[in-house]
Amino acid sequence: MHKVKNLIAQVVHSSTFSTAIITLIILNAVVIGLETYPSLYVPHSHWFFFLDQVFLWIFTLEIIMRLIVANPTKSYFRDGWNLFDFFIVASGHLLAGAHFVTVLRILRILRILRTISTIPSLRRLVNALIMTIPSMGNIMLLLSLFFYIFGVIGTIFFAQAMPEYFGSLHATLLTLFQVVTLESWASGVMRPLVAEVPWAWTYFVAFILMGTFVIFNLFIGVIVSNVEKCEDDEDETDTKDTEQQLTALRAEVAELKELLLKLNKEK
Amino acid sequence: MHKVKNLIAQVVHSSTFSTAIITLIILNAVVIGLETYPSLYVPHSHWFFFLDQVFLWIFTLEIIMRLIVANPTKSYFRDGWNLFDFFIVASGHLLAGAHFVTVLRILRILRILRTISTIPSLRRLVNALIMTIPSMGNIMLLLSLFFYIFGVIGTIFFAQAMPEYFGSLHATLLTLFQVVTLESWASGVMRPLVAEVPWAWTYFVAFILMGTFVIFNLFIGVIVSNVEKCEDDEDETDTKDTEQQLTALRAEVAELKELLLKLNKEK
Amino acid sequence: MHKVKNLIAQVVHSSTFSTAIITLIILNAVVIGLETYPSLYVPHSHWFFFLDQVFLWIFTLEIIMRLIVANPTKSYFRDGWNLFDFFIVASGHLLAGAHFVTVLRILRILRILRTISTIPSLRRLVNALIMTIPSMGNIMLLLSLFFYIFGVIGTIFFAQAMPEYFGSLHATLLTLFQVVTLESWASGVMRPLVAEVPWAWTYFVAFILMGTFVIFNLFIGVIVSNVEKCEDDEDETDTKDTEQQLTALRAEVAELKELLLKLNKEK
Amino acid sequence: MHKVKNLIAQVVHSSTFSTAIITLIILNAVVIGLETYPSLYVPHSHWFFFLDQVFLWIFTLEIIMRLIVANPTKSYFRDGWNLFDFFIVASGHLLAGAHFVTVLRILRILRILRTISTIPSLRRLVNALIMTIPSMGNIMLLLSLFFYIFGVIGTIFFAQAMPEYFGSLHATLLTLFQVVTLESWASGVMRPLVAEVPWAWTYFVAFILMGTFVIFNLFIGVIVSNVEKCEDDEDETDTKDTEQQLTALRAEVAELKELLLKLNKEK
Repeated sequence: MHKVKNLIAQVVHSSTFSTAIITLIILNAVVIGLETYPSLYVPHSHWFFFLDQVFLWIFTLEIIMRLIVANPTKSYFRDGWNLFDFFIVASGHLLAGAHFVTVLRILRILRILRTISTIPSLRRLVNALIMTIPSMGNIMLLLSLFFYIFGVIGTIFFAQAMPEYFGSLHATLLTLFQVVTLESWASGVMRPLVAEVPWAWTYFVAFILMGTFVIFNLFIGVIVSNVEKCEDDEDETDTKDTEQQLTALRAEVAELKELLLKLNKEK
Repeated sequence: MHKVKNLIAQVVHSSTFSTAIITLIILNAVVIGLETYPSLYVPHSHWFFFLDQVFLWIFTLEIIMRLIVANPTKSYFRDGWNLFDFFIVASGHLLAGAHFVTVLRILRILRILRTISTIPSLRRLVNALIMTIPSMGNIMLLLSLFFYIFGVIGTIFFAQAMPEYFGSLHATLLTLFQVVTLESWASGVMRPLVAEVPWAWTYFVAFILMGTFVIFNLFIGVIVSNVEKCEDDEDETDTKDTEQQLTALRAEVAELKELLLKLNKEK
Repeated sequence: MHKVKNLIAQVVHSSTFSTAIITLIILNAVVIGLETYPSLYVPHSHWFFFLDQVFLWIFTLEIIMRLIVANPTKSYFRDGWNLFDFFIVASGHLLAGAHFVTVLRILRILRILRTISTIPSLRRLVNALIMTIPSMGNIMLLLSLFFYIFGVIGTIFFAQAMPEYFGSLHATLLTLFQVVTLESWASGVMRPLVAEVPWAWTYFVAFILMGTFVIFNLFIGVIVSNVEKCEDDEDETDTKDTEQQLTALRAEVAELKELLLKLNKEK
Repeated sequence: MHKVKNLIAQVVHSSTFSTAIITLIILNAVVIGLETYPSLYVPHSHWFFFLDQVFLWIFTLEIIMRLIVANPTKSYFRDGWNLFDFFIVASGHLLAGAHFVTVLRILRILRILRTISTIPSLRRLVNALIMTIPSMGNIMLLLSLFFYIFGVIGTIFFAQAMPEYFGSLHATLLTLFQVVTLESWASGVMRPLVAEVPWAWTYFVAFILMGTFVIFNLFIGVIVSNVEKCEDDEDETDTKDTEQQLTALRAEVAELKELLLKLNKEK
C-alpha cells in the first residue's frame, strides 16, 4: 500500500504528469471549441460525447491520485484552487444524467479554467490579481454610490423621455455603465435625450467628469501602491546593508576608543 | 443635565450607533430606489411617505445628539461634512410643505451621500480626491483655453454646415467634449462635416492630438506627484537613519582624536 | 526721458498692471465669444468693431511699454512668447484694412492665447509640455512608419471595396487615425468592409494591436522618464549628503592615523 | 583586393553612406505612396517600374557592400535586422518575374520597414519594444483564456439570436475583441441582443469588467517593472559608491586598530 502511494506521489510530482494534464486540458478546450460548429458537431455528436467522457474520467483519475498523495487528505482541500478543481470535476459526474443541459455545458467550459489551477505561474498571477481587489474596496464603494445616486436621478427625470435607456433603475444603471465606458454616450444616449429634456447634458457631463475622475484615481492608487511595494522591498535590503556596515564601523571605533583609554590610563 | 450629556456622548461615540446610522442610510437609499418603480410606488405611496418621514426624524435626532455632544456646539459646524449633513437634513424639514417637489426629491437622494460623511474611510478618500483637484488647476485652465479657442473657431466655420453640433458656442463646446471623449467623433461629427467643409478634418485631428496630449500630461503629472510624495516620506526616514548613524560616528571619531591629542601632549 | 522710462518700468513690473492685462485678455475673449451669437452680433456689429479696436490699441500700448522697458530693446524679442505677443498684436494692425476677413478673425481668436504668455505659471506649464515632445521623437517616427505602411496596404487592397474610407492614401491615413482612437472602427469601418473582403479583419486587428502597443509604450516611456527625472534630483541631494559625510569621516580617520603614526615614531 | 575592401569599408561606415541610404529608403517610400494614386500611376506606370528597379538595384548593391565588409561574411547574418534586409531585397529579385503581384507589392511596401533597420535609434527602440513582450506572456495567456471561455459561452447562447456577431467561435472572438476596445459594444451589440436574450447584459458587463481589469493590470505590470528596472540601475551605482566608501573606511579603521595594538604591546 505504502509503496503504491510512493509510486503515485512520484508520478504526480513529475513534470511529465503536469505537462500531460495541461495538454489534456488544452485538448479538452479545443474539443469544446469544435463542438460550437454545428457542421462538425451534429454528424459526430456521439464522438464528442465519448471524448468528453474520456476527458472527465482522466481528470477524475488525476484528482483521485492527487487526493491519495495529499497527506493528510484534508490538506488537499485547503487550497482554493484544488477545491475549484474538485468541484468542476465532481459536478461533471453528479449532473451527468440530469436535464440541466445548459448548466452542464457551462461547467464543462469552466473546465478550461483548470489551465489556471494547473500552471503554477498562472495560478500565482491570478492570486496576485485577486489580492489587488480589496485595496480597491473604498473607491469601488464610492463609485457604486455615484452610480446609485445618478441612477435614481436619471430614472426620475428621464424615464418618460427615454424609457428604453432610463425606464427603470436597473435599466438606468446599465445605461450609466455604458456611459462610463464612453460608448455612444453622446450620439446614442445624450443627443436624442437633449432633444426632449434640454438640460440633460449637465447630467451626462457631470457623470462623465466624476466617473472618469474617480476611476482614474482608482488606477493611480493601484499604480502608486504597486510601485511603492516594490521599492519598499528593495530599499529595505539596500538600507539594511548600509546600516549593517555602519553598526560594524561604530563597534570598531568603540574598540579603538577602549584601546586609547587603556593607553591613557597606563601612562 | 451633565449626566444626560455624558450618556448621549457614550451612545454617539459607540460603534453600534454609527453602524446603526449607516444601516439606516443604506435602508433609506434602498427605499428611494424602490420608489422609482411606479408599480411599487403608486399603490403604496402613503407607506413610502411615512417611511421617509421616519428616516427624516431619525436623522434629525442623530444630528441633534451630535450637536449636544459637540463641545462647544459651534465646533460641530467647523467640519464641512457635518455642515453637509446638517443642510441635507434641515432642508428636508424646511421644504417639507413646499411645492418644489423636484428639489425635495433631489435633496432626499443626496441623503444617500451621507454614507460618505458617516463612514470615516470614505470620508478620508473623498477628502483626498478633492485635495488633488487644486494641483490640476493650471492644466485645467490650459484645457479650458483650448476648448474655448476651438469652440469659437468651430462655431465661426461650421455653424452653417452643421447647426446641430456647431450652431452656437455652447453647442460647439458640448460637441468638443464629445470629441475629446473620442465618442463618434469621426462617424457622427467629422465625416458628415467633411462632406461639406473638406478641410474640417484638420480641425478634428489637431483638437484630438492637442486635447489627448494635454489630458495625458494631466494624468502623468498626478501619477508622478503621487509617486514622489510617497517616496519622499520614505526616503526621509531612510536617510535620517543613515545620517544619524553617520553623525554619531563622526562624534565618536572626534572623541578618539581628542584622546590621541592628549596622549601626544603628555609625551 | 530717463525718469519717464523708470516710471513705465515701475508700472509694467507692478502686479496691478499684469492683473489688468489678464483681465482685458479675458474680457476680449468673452467679447469674441459673444460675437459668435448672430442675435447679439448683427444688431450691434459696430459696437463689437469699436470694442475690438479699443482692445487692439490697449494691447499695442502694452507692448510698446514693454518694448521701452526692455533693455536693450532687442532682448524683448529673445523670448518666443514675446515674439508671439508682438506678432499677434502687430498683425491686427497690418491686416486691419485687408479683405482677409477669415485670417483676421482667427488672428483675433489667437489673441486669447496671450493668456498663456501673460500668466507665468501657464507659460511654464506650456514650456514644460513642449519640452516633452522631442523625447517622443523616435516613437512618433515609428508610429508614422506604421501608419504609412498600413496606409499604403489599406489603399491598395480596400480602395475599390470602400472608396469613402480607403479611396486614396490620405483618406486611408485619416481612417487609420479614426481606427487608432477606436472610434467606430468595427461598426463603421471593419464590419461593412469584411462583408466584401473577408480577410480584412486581420488588417484591423493587427493595426489596433500594434498601434495601441506602440502608443502605450510611448505613454510608459514618458511616465518612467518623468518619475526618474524627479527621483534623480532627489537622490542626488540625498546621496550627496551621505557622500559628503563619508568623505569628511575618512579625512578625520586619516588625521587619526597620522597622529598614531607620529606617536609610534616618537617611541 | 584588400585595398578595395578597405575602401568599401570606409564608404560603408561613413555617415554620408547611411544618410544616403536612409534618404533613398524614404524616397522609395514616397514613390510607393504615389503609386496608390491611379491618376498618377496609370499614365506613368513604366516610369514607376523603372524607378522601382533602380531602387532595388541600389539596395542590392548596398547589401553586397555590407556583405563584403562583414568579417567573416557569416557575421552579417547573425543580426536579425540584417537578415530582414537581405530577405526583403533578395525576394525582390526572386519574385520579379513571378505572377504573385500582390505578394510582390507587399514585399515592396515592407521595404519601407528598412528605415528601422537603418536608423540605429529606431532599431534600438524596436528591439526594446520586442523585449517587453515576453514579460507580458502570462497575462496574455490569461487574457486568451478569458477570450476563449467567453467565446465558447457566447457562441452557444447567442448564435441563433445574432448570427452576424456570434454565429461561430471565430466570429464571437472578433466580436469580443471589438467589445474589449469598447467600440459600439452597447449600441451595436448588447442592446439589439438584450431585446432577444434579456440576461445577455450580464455576459457583457462581466466580460468588460474582467477584460479591462486584466488589461489594466497588464499595463500596471509593465509600468512598474519599467520604473523598477530604471531605479535598480541607479540604486546599484548609488549604493555601490556608498558601499565602497564604507569598506574603505573600515579598512582604514582596522589599520588604526593595528597601530594602537602595536603601541599597547610596546609599552
